[in-house]
Amino acid sequence: MLPAMPETHSRRREALRTLLRTANLDAMLVTDLLNVRYLTGFTGSNAALLVHAEDTPIAETRTTFCTDGRYLTQAGAQVPDLERVIERASATALAARSGSEAAAHRRTGFESHKVTVDALDVLAGAAEGVDLVRSPGLVEQLRLIKDDEEVEALRMACAAADRALAELLAADGLRAGRTEIEVARDLEARMRDNGASGPSFETIVAAGANSAVPHHRPTEKALRAGDLIKIDFGALVDGYHSDMTRTMVLGQPADWQQELYELVRLSQAAGRGALAVDVEVREVDAAARKVIEAAGHGEDFLHGLGHGVGLEVHEAPSLSKAGDGRLIAGMAVTVEPGVYLSGRGGVRIEDTLVVRDGEPELLTLTTKELVVV
Amino acid sequence: MLPAMPETHSRRREALRTLLRTANLDAMLVTDLLNVRYLTGFTGSNAALLVHAEDTPIAETRTTFCTDGRYLTQAGAQVPDLERVIERASATALAARSGSEAAAHRRTGFESHKVTVDALDVLAGAAEGVDLVRSPGLVEQLRLIKDDEEVEALRMACAAADRALAELLAADGLRAGRTEIEVARDLEARMRDNGASGPSFETIVAAGANSAVPHHRPTEKALRAGDLIKIDFGALVDGYHSDMTRTMVLGQPADWQQELYELVRLSQAAGRGALAVDVEVREVDAAARKVIEAAGHGEDFLHGLGHGVGLEVHEAPSLSKAGDGRLIAGMAVTVEPGVYLSGRGGVRIEDTLVVRDGEPELLTLTTKELVVV
Repeated sequence: MLPAMPETHSRRREALRTLLRTANLDAMLVTDLLNVRYLTGFTGSNAALLVHAEDTPIAETRTTFCTDGRYLTQAGAQVPDLERVIERASATALAARSGSEAAAHRRTGFESHKVTVDALDVLAGAAEGVDLVRSPGLVEQLRLIKDDEEVEALRMACAAADRALAELLAADGLRAGRTEIEVARDLEARMRDNGASGPSFETIVAAGANSAVPHHRPTEKALRAGDLIKIDFGALVDGYHSDMTRTMVLGQPADWQQELYELVRLSQAAGRGALAVDVEVREVDAAARKVIEAAGHGEDFLHGLGHGVGLEVHEAPSLSKAGDGRLIAGMAVTVEPGVYLSGRGGVRIEDTLVVRDGEPELLTLTTKELVVV
Repeated sequence: MLPAMPETHSRRREALRTLLRTANLDAMLVTDLLNVRYLTGFTGSNAALLVHAEDTPIAETRTTFCTDGRYLTQAGAQVPDLERVIERASATALAARSGSEAAAHRRTGFESHKVTVDALDVLAGAAEGVDLVRSPGLVEQLRLIKDDEEVEALRMACAAADRALAELLAADGLRAGRTEIEVARDLEARMRDNGASGPSFETIVAAGANSAVPHHRPTEKALRAGDLIKIDFGALVDGYHSDMTRTMVLGQPADWQQELYELVRLSQAAGRGALAVDVEVREVDAAARKVIEAAGHGEDFLHGLGHGVGLEVHEAPSLSKAGDGRLIAGMAVTVEPGVYLSGRGGVRIEDTLVVRDGEPELLTLTTKELVVV
């Protein structure tokens, strides 16, 4: 259980209140668990939060947190600073609370991008006299910009992944004869040894022709000399996800492998180079993509350039052709171009970085030179 | 990647069609990923399925599956028997498909218990001329009764957990000085060695006073002689979740530990004994609970007796005071009474079983005698 960080969470709730007032809301019913965690620090599997919009010193005292009896002790430790209600149907209980003080909750926002059609019926039934207002993505708007505590968690997650990969290589963990599954499990164990609570997603280890499959799942296929080995993995620390891909060659690389690697390396450097405040996200994608297109491999770059990371391994912003908006200082994103030659092999190189006013801050520190193992 | 099982999935879709016709639906848009997996075998992270209700031999040919380009190959291998559409916004693409043939999809059901308020807007916009009808829980109704393929997957998952625990004990893995986290990781690694793709939920290892916390997360606390050690864990095999709890004592058990254990053992046996076709689920809970209540510990049994398991680790039915309905042959459930003495320790004993016409089939085979390690 993490120690409570009352100031951090109080600051985040204060920022949410500003958004609520802008949206002309009296309150917001937060039911998405990650959003509740972001605003309170609570890590259990059932919770909701009712936040008041008013701009007064007592706004915090009117903010109510709800979880069920299993988490009585945990809630006391993690959310010591808020009124706590213990009730199994946490969202419904807080909707009823807003209904019982309808005058103060006339317009209560709800997370229409997360609440199901059926669940809304239940909430509306409980919140009698209250106008439940669709308010998608408000907390996510805050989560887009990472504060210092979040960047520190991402930094630790990326460091755990860096160290795990370094140890794997030092222990000759990538050797001919080992299977993709064995390598993936070894890497995951090493991330845990380095402070991760687990992998931040299912580790990808793709050898030989499998490396041409962007989202390959590890198999019993054994690594062989001459294989490209693509490893896409991350560590989970304090709920924050790191995300890194490195592609290596087992034994002496062939010319085509070196050329492919160099192409992706240059593309990835171009993508990182474009990461700056106020740049359109699609321009970052374009900066990396044009390097690959110029080499005639545009059709072999099968996905967007990158995505935000944080409490989710994939979150906003999307660095892709279809992405919208501009970069803001404090966004945490991946930059991960790849070129996939079906039946032969593929290369992807991915870092996690934080957009800063000057240079972006690189969180994944493993070398991007071609590693020959 | 699992081999396709076209007959199994075709049979499940046929069963769904019967439900659709009963509900007076022309078709159903299935967007929940587990439900899509159940009906098609597809294991990727983006998919939707449009199932026609008509009772004709060509119904299957009009059933359409959709995923995105990342899963082109995988979809071909796992869903060879259906028309496949490749589109990023899979649910929207199939809603548009129903709109383009509105006459044949006049009343199209959607999963209102899973589709968000905002997502419904998008689907309704795409499915012009179609009446999107709230149809919660139809596929879940089928999933309630496990077919042979599902029971076999559960059997393998339970066996992986049984073997992992046996190996852990044989390797002296529960010894004084090891931390709860170390034991949890050891057990998870052994489940993987025995064929699990991973743990089916976060492994609980709770030593000493921690065993009195029903949902304790493993800590750096070291096991000590005299500790009750409660281990609640499961293996994931082919998407199916096993779930088992055993409580052991490290060193010589005290009298109160033996008495507590014996009480829970008798309660659990009573619960298993009540598992029979047509029995009300709340009667199963009552059968186990009354044993604990008679001993004066009713207040210390803090949760329901059990729950369904399958593609989710917690699914219907709920064996609890508030549970509704009767047992049906083929339901897979847990039976897991517990008594928790705050500050001292707790005992929980849990099996996974399948309800059968005669005796239930026990899937978790580890002994329920008090193991002293």
